[in-house]
Amino acid sequence: MKILVVNAGSSSLKYQLIDMDTEGVIAKGGCERIGLPKSILKHKTDKGEKIIEQDMPDHKVAIRLVLEALVHPEYGAISSMKEIDAVGHRLVHSAEDFNCSVLVNDEVMEKCRNNIELAPLHQPANITGIEACMEVMPGTPMALVFDTAFHSTMPDYAYMYAIDYDDYKNYKIRRYGFHGTSHKFVSQEAAKYLNKKPEDLKIITCHLGNGSSISAVKGGKCVDTSMGFTPLCGVPMGTRSGDIDPSVVEYLCHKKGYDLAQAIEYLNKKCGVAGVSGVSSDFRDLTKAAAEGNERARLALDIFNYQCKKYIGSYAAAMDGVDCVVFTAGIGENTAEVRSAICRDMDFFGIKIDETKNLTKNDGSIRDITGKGSKVKVLIIPTNEELVIARETKALVEGK
Amino acid sequence: MKILVVNAGSSSLKYQLIDMDTEGVIAKGGCERIGLPKSILKHKTDKGEKIIEQDMPDHKVAIRLVLEALVHPEYGAISSMKEIDAVGHRLVHSAEDFNCSVLVNDEVMEKCRNNIELAPLHQPANITGIEACMEVMPGTPMALVFDTAFHSTMPDYAYMYAIDYDDYKNYKIRRYGFHGTSHKFVSQEAAKYLNKKPEDLKIITCHLGNGSSISAVKGGKCVDTSMGFTPLCGVPMGTRSGDIDPSVVEYLCHKKGYDLAQAIEYLNKKCGVAGVSGVSSDFRDLTKAAAEGNERARLALDIFNYQCKKYIGSYAAAMDGVDCVVFTAGIGENTAEVRSAICRDMDFFGIKIDETKNLTKNDGSIRDITGKGSKVKVLIIPTNEELVIARETKALVEGK
Repeated sequence: MKILVVNAGSSSLKYQLIDMDTEGVIAKGGCERIGLPKSILKHKTDKGEKIIEQDMPDHKVAIRLVLEALVHPEYGAISSMKEIDAVGHRLVHSAEDFNCSVLVNDEVMEKCRNNIELAPLHQPANITGIEACMEVMPGTPMALVFDTAFHSTMPDYAYMYAIDYDDYKNYKIRRYGFHGTSHKFVSQEAAKYLNKKPEDLKIITCHLGNGSSISAVKGGKCVDTSMGFTPLCGVPMGTRSGDIDPSVVEYLCHKKGYDLAQAIEYLNKKCGVAGVSGVSSDFRDLTKAAAEGNERARLALDIFNYQCKKYIGSYAAAMDGVDCVVFTAGIGENTAEVRSAICRDMDFFGIKIDETKNLTKNDGSIRDITGKGSKVKVLIIPTNEELVIARETKALVEGK
Repeated sequence: MKILVVNAGSSSLKYQLIDMDTEGVIAKGGCERIGLPKSILKHKTDKGEKIIEQDMPDHKVAIRLVLEALVHPEYGAISSMKEIDAVGHRLVHSAEDFNCSVLVNDEVMEKCRNNIELAPLHQPANITGIEACMEVMPGTPMALVFDTAFHSTMPDYAYMYAIDYDDYKNYKIRRYGFHGTSHKFVSQEAAKYLNKKPEDLKIITCHLGNGSSISAVKGGKCVDTSMGFTPLCGVPMGTRSGDIDPSVVEYLCHKKGYDLAQAIEYLNKKCGVAGVSGVSSDFRDLTKAAAEGNERARLALDIFNYQCKKYIGSYAAAMDGVDCVVFTAGIGENTAEVRSAICRDMDFFGIKIDETKNLTKNDGSIRDITGKGSKVKVLIIPTNEELVIARETKALVEGK
């Protein structure tokens, strides 16, 4: 079975074609600048990379070009579109309508459209991509895999904010969490690696990238996560503030002459480690600058590491324990300094890492950096959200 | 030495006269409805309570009435105003100008006035009370004891938000924390009770009242606290939301037609356990309703307890350990159900309470509710912010 995984943004469309017998990627790539001048498709197979510059006025044209590339006799990967058994789409928001992946039908799409205002930046683009695929590939089963669904198992006292209950009911204001496919994937991989049943484990998964979130996974189920109603809150990120006193929104408007939308935009785009450091949102730049004595880069890293450490502590309390801490995503997989700082002085929690193992290079495999005498396993697990989407799509198509 | 402790609100003025030789309260009371019709002074000594209904157009008149009551031949406590050696004032906000209590002078008052916009509801009222006392009691030394000062020892990575560094510098946007006198008092009392030096202890102090905050106190110094730029954030409170995704502010305005001020007012006044439960902000009402099967009261308590538990976990991570958890203030001292729920399933942290001891009545003394085999001491310590203010005032007056 071959599954096409699609992740559509407002002017982009990323894809992977995965052979589910081997779970290997047989082609992948992305369209950029859809609806803009100079659109471009970058397409990769084991034969190499092909770059196609062609106008893509909309996502329908883009997906047609992707399919043409996939079946191209020279740089394609399959001989016919019929070889694609199903398409798995990433969709950011399930609201409370779905707690797992689903096959597309009219009712499902209607519900997804109703949740646009919960993720006004991403949901419409995701939906556009799905609709384009449905039109170009009629008859091919399509599945939706939600960024939020893995978090739907949180208990009410974890997902509820302490606000007027009617406003939760009427306006759906609550913690949803994001990066669900990644948290799910790495927590399952951790259980496999440790040769234990997910049911027997308390795992804290740290998805640290340009967007970062941390989750508590108990018995295979998410019980808490650091992102909330939107991806703005939780630990600090590249340019997002993370948790902050909501009164600051009013104060910023007052002091900086912002309107509300500008204040929220500021918290999303001008804050985080980039805002503190004034250097960069890229942790490679930050660790370099900090090592060279840049005090604000040092501070930005310290804030980030400290908040991550506190989330680990709070989730150990939420689960009454932790068996395994997993680092994943861009920073989690590649920035040794961050892993080291987060795990430093965590003896009370039984967390110790091996600083030498921590420095081994990312070769795409699972790295066990547990230190001697550590009661808690510490793993680096490369995330693979596309594979999760493909797996879930396969299961739905096979009716499992 | 006798010290008058004054806590002025916008239309109120609470006071205690404390004999520092015994640290006993020799008179206490409060003026209500200052500047409003039907002002009233309630004055209490060991001779009983005296209620004086008299117009108090401003705080000057109010403090004069208090002094008259204190020296009254019939219901007074001292024979002359000269017996009052000093006045200690509660002031909510020190900003970054003061890291400890100070004696009043013009320069100090100027700085305090400059920080009004950081606490626009409380700071002006506090200042009005101080100025009234200065005028009515010229020549009597006055000290300012700040709600924020105990938290001034937080490291930069704990007090900084991940925002543009210049906005921290220019607009003083950072975590300040509140209830400092209470956290200081109970952490010091805990060390005394445990017969240990504060320097050797890691203490988590839970000041749980209508306003609630939790602090991490390491080696006698505050290293983190749950309230932030304002008292809105941290754990949920009677009517305050506590921590919440700042994006919710924008969404509320959009959905409910609020302007910014209304949204922040909503988060301060209509949320918290009162908003979730729809029952009350009073934990006696909540525990009763929950016991009777009210599902929303159960949920409100669960949210509150869960967030407190998570803060304890995060502060154990911040300090790499915890030797003692202290409960104080209205709920912390009186609501056994809350203490029990927060400490339940905390074996990983070595926290166990004795459920029988937990039910003993509040008699104003320290109650040790540590359970058998608990590695962490769990204490209930009645807070006494007035005594801290008096002690600090005494120390300043004596030049210590």
